[in-house]
Amino acid sequence: MSENSKLMIALDAMGGDHGPSVVVPGAIAGMTAESPYGITLYGDEKAVGDELAKLDTHGLTISVVHCTQDIEMGESPASAIRNKKDSPIVRAMLDHKQGLVQAVVSAGSTGAMVAGSLIILGRLPGVERPAIGTLIPTIKGDLLLLDAGANIQCTAEYLLSFARMGDVFAREILKVDNPTIGQLNIGEEPKKGTDLNVETYQLLQGSELNFIGNIEGNQIMLGPCDVIVTDGFTGNNTLKLVEGIAHFLYALAKKPGLGDEERAAIKPVLGLLMREFSYEVYGGAMLLGVAGNSIIAHGRSSSLAITNAVKMAWREIESDLPTKLAAAHSE
Amino acid sequence: MSENSKLMIALDAMGGDHGPSVVVPGAIAGMTAESPYGITLYGDEKAVGDELAKLDTHGLTISVVHCTQDIEMGESPASAIRNKKDSPIVRAMLDHKQGLVQAVVSAGSTGAMVAGSLIILGRLPGVERPAIGTLIPTIKGDLLLLDAGANIQCTAEYLLSFARMGDVFAREILKVDNPTIGQLNIGEEPKKGTDLNVETYQLLQGSELNFIGNIEGNQIMLGPCDVIVTDGFTGNNTLKLVEGIAHFLYALAKKPGLGDEERAAIKPVLGLLMREFSYEVYGGAMLLGVAGNSIIAHGRSSSLAITNAVKMAWREIESDLPTKLAAAHSE
Repeated sequence: MSENSKLMIALDAMGGDHGPSVVVPGAIAGMTAESPYGITLYGDEKAVGDELAKLDTHGLTISVVHCTQDIEMGESPASAIRNKKDSPIVRAMLDHKQGLVQAVVSAGSTGAMVAGSLIILGRLPGVERPAIGTLIPTIKGDLLLLDAGANIQCTAEYLLSFARMGDVFAREILKVDNPTIGQLNIGEEPKKGTDLNVETYQLLQGSELNFIGNIEGNQIMLGPCDVIVTDGFTGNNTLKLVEGIAHFLYALAKKPGLGDEERAAIKPVLGLLMREFSYEVYGGAMLLGVAGNSIIAHGRSSSLAITNAVKMAWREIESDLPTKLAAAHSE
Repeated sequence: MSENSKLMIALDAMGGDHGPSVVVPGAIAGMTAESPYGITLYGDEKAVGDELAKLDTHGLTISVVHCTQDIEMGESPASAIRNKKDSPIVRAMLDHKQGLVQAVVSAGSTGAMVAGSLIILGRLPGVERPAIGTLIPTIKGDLLLLDAGANIQCTAEYLLSFARMGDVFAREILKVDNPTIGQLNIGEEPKKGTDLNVETYQLLQGSELNFIGNIEGNQIMLGPCDVIVTDGFTGNNTLKLVEGIAHFLYALAKKPGLGDEERAAIKPVLGLLMREFSYEVYGGAMLLGVAGNSIIAHGRSSSLAITNAVKMAWREIESDLPTKLAAAHSE
């Protein structure tokens, strides 16, 4: 296989709180000359080149696409996508659309990644609303939560579609047979929650999916199912609360008035949470339902998180995920 | 002051997972002959009497009201209140309405307590929707979250009213000057979240309250404000996620593959969480906006939780909370 025939993963080198200094080493870290994929770095070629010069890139398939613009975190996503044609996200999405790269990874603005994916890649046939899927670490392993924030207001039909996408993701990426699907709700009974919850329960119950019922928030981290569906507001709030556990323990360790044993104990527990349950280990959120592979790394991403987001992109490419997501909507 | 002139707190002796064996000792635990209040226990007089006989009740003001019925956890709340006239909740609420007792505490069905309070006590003048307030333990102290589940669907006007009630509660019960009020949301900016969030932000911003803006879920346990308002679905889900932290750590301690240091560390951290951050320390949720003092203890309440729920009832009585909540709606 010649170097140029490798499948390529696009990286927004300017994304995230730390830009090229974190994204470039993170992107390279998992690669060898034998990697089945190469990396295309989109960003300021001087800044990207300076970071590459610090690293051993011998034998790796790396290219750089110079971009003169960048999308800031506070910008209106849709207008940024329409106006900043020479930003990494827009250039990478256009190249993905043309087949020059097979996935796009960015730790930049989530809104810009969602807008860029929707406007440039478009939706998969049969998918009315793409959703952000995110892996939540649980005692029993990974749980896919969706929607984690792309759709603030939802219908029961959207949630059924999210469940179908979650089912495919769990089979193809998490390698789970017959994934269990739950609905996040404030009670277990079918009539609990909002009108949306009640209607969604009925749709899921009547579907071909392995629906196990409503799941309450205090159960999530115990690993009650493989996929949990909810609207984007509730999903985003839930994700933030789960992420907040580590912030809380970190602050707790500094609180006056603790016993010595208690204070000493918090550090290893935090270490454990960071090692097994941190978003860094997961590296990204997946925008599911667009015509391509679009991975959003956490804005505060470390190099490890970027490395893991690239691995996720590769798993999506390898399993031809978009084709399978579309198939789940054509039955 | 003669014994009979004492203010009385009504206890649903049959409520909660453990009934009289937990409620009766919990109710008595905080009392002395000098307590400014007495306790009226509603329930099966034999079962209640058996528990009282095990305790030293010398000099305490205790009475028992025999009830032949009880409301089960799964029952439809409104029909239970209408049909079970001789249940502890109905009897206690009727006595509260007549002024024979000054507060009602139950660890029974939340729905029955809400329905009983609404149907029998009624709403305070100016309050369209009563809300469940609950104290969330944070690094900086207590934070009042409301609504924790009474109103699944809300309007911005309801949330403004919840904020006004939270402001009064924080002043009167938590003894905070000029309490800070936040809105739970998935981003800090005024335009973030649902239409409800955007409209509520505007109402709170234009109000007389000390509104500090939107608060994200990962900040809650760091103590970002004194009062946080949200709809009852989001509030209930949030509360369950916060409660889930302890469940998660408990399960984590049993997970295979942990290092010895990590496993050993979890136990004291759990002990710390149970001591300072457990719902037992808080004892109850307060139904705010009804014409009376209605305190809902956690269904899994221990005696300690009941004792603390009784203390909360007394603080509400002492500060004449309902009158002050009504005043906040008449300006």
